[in-house]
Amino acid sequence: MTAAAGMDIATLRGRIARGEVSHEAVVARALEDSEAPAALHVFTKRYAQAALAAAHHADAAQRAGVVLPALAGLPVTVKDLYDVAGETTMAGSVVCEGEPVAAADAVAVARLRSTGAAIIGKTNMTEFAFSGVGINPHHGTPRNPADAAVARIPGGSSSGAAVSVALGLAVAGLGSDTGGSIRIPAALCGLVGFKSTQGRVPRAGAFELARSLDTVCAMTRSVADCLVVDAAIAGTPLPVRRRPLQGLRLAVPRTLMFDGIEPAVAQAFDRAVSALSAAGAIVADVTLSELAEIAGINAPGGFSPVEASAVHRARIGAQRERFDPRVAARVDLGMSVGAADYILMQDHRREWIGRVEAALEGFDALLCPTVPIVAPAIDALAADAEFFKANGLLLRNTFAINFLDGCAFSLPCHRAGELPVGLMLSSVCGDDARLAAVALAVEETLGAC
Amino acid sequence: MTAAAGMDIATLRGRIARGEVSHEAVVARALEDSEAPAALHVFTKRYAQAALAAAHHADAAQRAGVVLPALAGLPVTVKDLYDVAGETTMAGSVVCEGEPVAAADAVAVARLRSTGAAIIGKTNMTEFAFSGVGINPHHGTPRNPADAAVARIPGGSSSGAAVSVALGLAVAGLGSDTGGSIRIPAALCGLVGFKSTQGRVPRAGAFELARSLDTVCAMTRSVADCLVVDAAIAGTPLPVRRRPLQGLRLAVPRTLMFDGIEPAVAQAFDRAVSALSAAGAIVADVTLSELAEIAGINAPGGFSPVEASAVHRARIGAQRERFDPRVAARVDLGMSVGAADYILMQDHRREWIGRVEAALEGFDALLCPTVPIVAPAIDALAADAEFFKANGLLLRNTFAINFLDGCAFSLPCHRAGELPVGLMLSSVCGDDARLAAVALAVEETLGAC
Repeated sequence: MTAAAGMDIATLRGRIARGEVSHEAVVARALEDSEAPAALHVFTKRYAQAALAAAHHADAAQRAGVVLPALAGLPVTVKDLYDVAGETTMAGSVVCEGEPVAAADAVAVARLRSTGAAIIGKTNMTEFAFSGVGINPHHGTPRNPADAAVARIPGGSSSGAAVSVALGLAVAGLGSDTGGSIRIPAALCGLVGFKSTQGRVPRAGAFELARSLDTVCAMTRSVADCLVVDAAIAGTPLPVRRRPLQGLRLAVPRTLMFDGIEPAVAQAFDRAVSALSAAGAIVADVTLSELAEIAGINAPGGFSPVEASAVHRARIGAQRERFDPRVAARVDLGMSVGAADYILMQDHRREWIGRVEAALEGFDALLCPTVPIVAPAIDALAADAEFFKANGLLLRNTFAINFLDGCAFSLPCHRAGELPVGLMLSSVCGDDARLAAVALAVEETLGAC
Repeated sequence: MTAAAGMDIATLRGRIARGEVSHEAVVARALEDSEAPAALHVFTKRYAQAALAAAHHADAAQRAGVVLPALAGLPVTVKDLYDVAGETTMAGSVVCEGEPVAAADAVAVARLRSTGAAIIGKTNMTEFAFSGVGINPHHGTPRNPADAAVARIPGGSSSGAAVSVALGLAVAGLGSDTGGSIRIPAALCGLVGFKSTQGRVPRAGAFELARSLDTVCAMTRSVADCLVVDAAIAGTPLPVRRRPLQGLRLAVPRTLMFDGIEPAVAQAFDRAVSALSAAGAIVADVTLSELAEIAGINAPGGFSPVEASAVHRARIGAQRERFDPRVAARVDLGMSVGAADYILMQDHRREWIGRVEAALEGFDALLCPTVPIVAPAIDALAADAEFFKANGLLLRNTFAINFLDGCAFSLPCHRAGELPVGLMLSSVCGDDARLAAVALAVEETLGAC
């Protein structure tokens, strides 16, 4: 089966423009396929009627000669943590049942809607966006489509978002990234994920995990598609100036990022570096020993547990038994942290960011594996010890860039037939446009290998 | 004795321009008077040489036909909490002795210096800017010049700043305002104090009390003088459009602000309201019951103790006995607050600000007494119970405006021979320019009474 939206946006729009398929047919097929066994646990809610209406409207507008926005009439999904007017936002939980409904769409949802996108459903996620694994005990765990033989995790927390795109049900999955929640599932499912600088897209209407880190962003099938979605949800396109790979200076940080790496990931990464070097990129190892300090700065409890404890304290107090116990454990951790520790953690982070930014001057991007392992089997993470060990490995590299207040792309760098591996390109706060140009050049080179 | 700088800036500049006195003579006299008994405990440090050099330079520039910036060559003071390059910033304490020296002047100090101001010294303050009283057990307490018979508190925390201006040693005292530290001593010493919106002047190089509230600002002899200093330290003048008092809508909040008011303050306030009404202002009572919520929102510990506990934890741990015990007690209070409480306090404050801003729509300013009491005698506050009771009353009205993230002027509204009483004009975040126009009109009316 060729999934209805299983191609990049430009290709799909080309087919539609040539009359080979209609927006409505693409969306109808996506809705149909969303009921297939492969899509089990991917959605927490579907919007068949509204999505078909948007697609129908795009077809009519096209027939009338209207120039359509890039996402008009195309199927997209939104993570379960975004407000949709009139619904209670659940954020992958059950504990929010009965809480007040959202008065308005989240800003990102409203912007997607206003470009005419056909929002086919809300996607499953790790409860309250905790953890990079993607296991959800309430709504089930979407299976990673990359392996037909073994049921592997999709990565999280934007698990359903990734699988919805990987299955070709949507051209883009709106997710969020607090410690890697876009880039981890993108890497494990073979997609492109773009975590923009936190301030780029307003967070209004996004269920909060950690206010210092939460980023509204998406995953797609290509860098260009990520930029299409980014332009829509940020309200303005990044001023990307394309440039060839030749002469780009890419730094490979040798501290932390390669600890515990699996051979399959190391091989794919080394292959990518060779290809980039051969194409003229200047790839240089850097120590970047500052990366070893993150754990110490976060030691009092970490931003996510601390900030989430403020969000969830009342719910934990009243209905602890309805939480995923692994999430409750991390909220408890945050609850024990003092305000002074939290404030000092902010200060130390800011000081650390300054030093890392100085260390990265002169480089166009950092280059490392998005995650050091391939997707583990779901069954292998049944025990808490295995779960938390895997979660730590999954989040480690991506979180460093959230901590930096930076921006990053994850690009697939595995070969067909291999389990997906992500290559992460990262830069500092606000460097999104330049990083996007680097990502486009890297993607082109890797695609040609 | 007529103090050298005992007049407003325009008057003093006029005298200098006419050759009646030189900048250097004014500064020399200010330095001399700063050694007089009345100025006991006002300064923690003097800069005689640099101040005389700045004044000398202004005289030379004037002779050469240079148009001088408004503060050039005029004596100003800076609060002990501002960094001066090469010195350890003490912030009214002794515990900071031996800590590293500042690498650069605080932004506000550097800006004053770059306009040519003659900084004659650093002024005494409440230790670490805690409390609105102005008592300092390490460096002594400057006496309020308003009462020759009884030694009264000057108010704090910018105690020395206020007395330096009230004694005519400086045309302006750079202070800071976290809960009223500019407006309280301005009110008790009969000066004009302007607490601008927090974001207006960069805080770099100002010793931190509470990052959510700390404001860099000053007190002077008139509203116009406050605007001169504000333009210098903000780097750009407020776009003030003067307007007559007639038709201005002033709201008198009847919740909280008048509780426990002393008769002398009530009389001065009522007199001011009558004069403003007679001059055409539309003065309306409003309930503004939101003011009663502040204590509850702050109940977990309050922004100042919590944020200060992060600043001082290491010092308290190592050298508690060198702290003012009253300051240590408040830092301890902050230390016991959890991060979740602090984060929720921020959220509740933001939500409260939104409601108060909505309630104040349609008014040009809030009008109330700056503090509900006149300056108590220093001796009357020897016992902790009396001290903390007075401190609570002193800070209550002013703090409400810090909590609002607003801006405010305190203007004298007492008659000659009475103890000083301050009239506070306040508005919401960013409304500084409009509020300044209101303050100019009110000052003119009160001055004509």
